[in-house]
Amino acid sequence: MSQVNESLLTYCEQLARKARVASAQMALLSGERKNKSLMRAADLLVEQQAEILSANRLDLEAAPQYGLTAAEIDRLKLDEKRIAEMAQGIRAVAAQPDPIGEVISGEVRPNGLKIQKVRVPLGVIFFIYESRPNVTADAAALCIKSGNAIILRGGKEAVHSSRAIVAILKRAAQEFGIPEDALGQVEVADREAVGYLLQMPQFIDVTIPRGGKSLIQRVATEARMPVIKHYDGNCHVYIDRFANLKMAERIVVNAKCQRMGVCNACESLVVHSDVAAEFLPMLAERLAPYEIEIRGDAEVCKLLKDAKLASEEDWGTEYLGPILSVRVVPDLEGAIDHINRYGSKHTDAIVTNDLAAADYFCRAVDSSAVVVNASTRFNDGGQLGLGAEIGISTDKFHARGPCGAMELTSYKYVIVGQGQVRE
Amino acid sequence: MSQVNESLLTYCEQLARKARVASAQMALLSGERKNKSLMRAADLLVEQQAEILSANRLDLEAAPQYGLTAAEIDRLKLDEKRIAEMAQGIRAVAAQPDPIGEVISGEVRPNGLKIQKVRVPLGVIFFIYESRPNVTADAAALCIKSGNAIILRGGKEAVHSSRAIVAILKRAAQEFGIPEDALGQVEVADREAVGYLLQMPQFIDVTIPRGGKSLIQRVATEARMPVIKHYDGNCHVYIDRFANLKMAERIVVNAKCQRMGVCNACESLVVHSDVAAEFLPMLAERLAPYEIEIRGDAEVCKLLKDAKLASEEDWGTEYLGPILSVRVVPDLEGAIDHINRYGSKHTDAIVTNDLAAADYFCRAVDSSAVVVNASTRFNDGGQLGLGAEIGISTDKFHARGPCGAMELTSYKYVIVGQGQVRE
Repeated sequence: MSQVNESLLTYCEQLARKARVASAQMALLSGERKNKSLMRAADLLVEQQAEILSANRLDLEAAPQYGLTAAEIDRLKLDEKRIAEMAQGIRAVAAQPDPIGEVISGEVRPNGLKIQKVRVPLGVIFFIYESRPNVTADAAALCIKSGNAIILRGGKEAVHSSRAIVAILKRAAQEFGIPEDALGQVEVADREAVGYLLQMPQFIDVTIPRGGKSLIQRVATEARMPVIKHYDGNCHVYIDRFANLKMAERIVVNAKCQRMGVCNACESLVVHSDVAAEFLPMLAERLAPYEIEIRGDAEVCKLLKDAKLASEEDWGTEYLGPILSVRVVPDLEGAIDHINRYGSKHTDAIVTNDLAAADYFCRAVDSSAVVVNASTRFNDGGQLGLGAEIGISTDKFHARGPCGAMELTSYKYVIVGQGQVRE
Repeated sequence: MSQVNESLLTYCEQLARKARVASAQMALLSGERKNKSLMRAADLLVEQQAEILSANRLDLEAAPQYGLTAAEIDRLKLDEKRIAEMAQGIRAVAAQPDPIGEVISGEVRPNGLKIQKVRVPLGVIFFIYESRPNVTADAAALCIKSGNAIILRGGKEAVHSSRAIVAILKRAAQEFGIPEDALGQVEVADREAVGYLLQMPQFIDVTIPRGGKSLIQRVATEARMPVIKHYDGNCHVYIDRFANLKMAERIVVNAKCQRMGVCNACESLVVHSDVAAEFLPMLAERLAPYEIEIRGDAEVCKLLKDAKLASEEDWGTEYLGPILSVRVVPDLEGAIDHINRYGSKHTDAIVTNDLAAADYFCRAVDSSAVVVNASTRFNDGGQLGLGAEIGISTDKFHARGPCGAMELTSYKYVIVGQGQVRE
């Protein structure tokens, strides 16, 4: 190992060790102190926004050299309104109930032992994320709320903005005795730093990567601690034979077109054969202005002259763009089989007025969110009432779906006796 | 890859794929059906015990060739009483509330969307375990209760007993329409089978290894799905300055001596300096009949003439035998620092009559169970009221401490609307 890497390794170890030490202090903070610090951070972000805006200008100036697209540059850009929204997001986190110390369950055993299952922080979160600067504020706020320490590793494209935001959050933290090492930040650009930190389960309890599939796969492969992973969202809408077809049309258009590049957008439509002939032409007309390409099975191609024949691969594809795969099924079971086989267990919806069908769909479809008569786009931390989210889990283990402060917790058993021993 | 391994791989794939298919059916079973099947299984185990006992004799005959110790052979041996206990364990699991379908939380959003967080099974559990045959029955019962499919890989030492038990459980399952593939069993002895199954995250949701540290490390390294790990139990008892010393003596003797080879036995004693001179000699006298070797710091060696000086390594060691490390600390903070530094986050107790000290200890010690005025030996699924346990987690992620049926679950969001779309 070269000299440079050894010093990088030492740097990473110190960063992670400090976060571990800070996490022990974080676990003992009162809810009041955490909330006051968050409210103060929100105020300071607005008051001291000049600092953030000038840092953001440096990122914007560097953006062309990173080859960012216009859309990416727009997401990177901060202004007074966006900073106000960021502050509002932090206030919303502060307003939530404190997850820490919650007694999840409790009982007195026959021998008089009092057993409580009490919610505690996870410890140290290593958060690797893309370039939107507001994500820095959200993630830091959620970690303070849940009594964790965080190590932030943001995209290089937003490095100045993120640093300015963290500096302000640290000021607020300091005023309320929150250890500044609880808001750690990887200050070096070296890619190896991530690799080193992923080898430190003694300091880091969980890693949350947010970004492209290759990043998540790399992290999942290298990490020696648990990882909250966010893979594909190949989301379906199923139009049942007892669907209100006007409602179905509105839901599919929203789920597909309201924002195409996101994980909870609809990628595949499944239609009951009883309503396909009526529904598909009317839907195609509504989708026309959005220039959505339809890839369907033979039945669909008969009904829609512009449809292309879907390949086997289409059924499993998350397009993240103006393509929709469409399949006609003979019954509810057929729809559920299709979704469980080709879906990605993210978000799947049914449109129906049949109570039994809705109930069965919700139980049988194995996805993080099952939706009845609403758009798939509602599977989102904010929309579900979780407040900000640090990530979305496509796993079933630990956390599933959007992860807010609650999902950054564990628990311990507190056992109180009066001298009991085991026979 | 050789011909033999390819056929083994195919075997493993089929086993895992069948379990995946069965798990989808398991998720939809009513609590009534699961409970009736479990009650029937308990009855059949007793009624058809001749079958189990004759299989068990084959294992006992083979035991010497595996080099089992007398204690290990004793644990392997089944008799009428042990089979009755096994049946009773299954009935206790049946009597627990059904975790599946529980509405963990729910609310109506401002836009009228009804959101429920509903408990669901994890899916397929791969369970690798040591030779005690009753573990087979416990694990299978917990998986049926929690609506999961299981793939059992027991130790070769108990292979005949385990097969006989599973055959009977399958009979009971079949009577109530529970898919027999939900109780999968690796029927081949090849060690590679475990390696192959650990590479199948598409079929297996979580692996639970139970056994020695090297097995757990191997599984954690190779597995491409989450693993519930059970590492060391370096458990402490801290005797506070305000302890009832008679109670303290009783608790330490129980925690250390009642069963020395288990993970929740006390390995290290921490004593407040105000009471060390009075407490340690009286404790040493009580420990004498158990021939416990004491390894202490300089202060301890002054007070106890038979004590040896502890090395740095001693503080971090899980002896699982008749050795106890002992340290004198100046205050509560010193005790907590010592425990958080050298402990394994398993089970740590305080003996005190000081409410503030007890409260602070419970919050500041980062262990799966913190105990006030009782033996560490109570951190056990049965003692905590969880019923049978499939394993004990020393992680903070997903599950911590003993894992019963509840810990084998995940959740999904069920979102019910009336046509809502996102703005």
